[in-house]
Amino acid sequence: MASHLESSIEGIIKVFHSYSGREGDKYKLSKTELKNLLEGEFGDSMKSCKDPQVLEHIMSGLDEDKDGEISFQEFVVLVFELTVTCNEFFQDMKDQGSKKV
Amino acid sequence: MASHLESSIEGIIKVFHSYSGREGDKYKLSKTELKNLLEGEFGDSMKSCKDPQVLEHIMSGLDEDKDGEISFQEFVVLVFELTVTCNEFFQDMKDQGSKKV
Repeated sequence: MASHLESSIEGIIKVFHSYSGREGDKYKLSKTELKNLLEGEFGDSMKSCKDPQVLEHIMSGLDEDKDGEISFQEFVVLVFELTVTCNEFFQDMKDQGSKKV
Repeated sequence: MASHLESSIEGIIKVFHSYSGREGDKYKLSKTELKNLLEGEFGDSMKSCKDPQVLEHIMSGLDEDKDGEISFQEFVVLVFELTVTCNEFFQDMKDQGSKKV
């Protein structure tokens, strides 16, 4: 049976390929595929953002080699940053909780 | 309901804290906690490796600020590298499979 960490790693890989295989290079995310991934995985928070410049900004920030698409390695940087941010939030919440006790 | 990506991110955070909270700084992995995490999450492949220098090597490679412990940010680098390596393996397997058809 896969460990929790192995399942998480597998989950990240599966999510990427479930979107990257839809058009063009099957191992890279086009701008439309990235948009679909962000909307599909971060739902309402992305859908409620009507400004197309947000997607442009995320895309250009991730597209290290400037080929107009997001490779898996470039995508993992986003996941890395989100994970570190979520952890900081989690630790802050935990610290605040323990101060109240 | 959490998306697949959100669940994966949550899984990475949970795994780290389930080991980091056992002794000393609850937000950092001591060498023993890192050893337990690697054995717990990568089971047989780590347990079958009897050479203690492997743990020393992983520890010193991750411990960016040389404080003798692994912070969450330092740990995520390991997960990042493992994820990229697993994805390369997955893509190679997929490419080999499609060549056979």
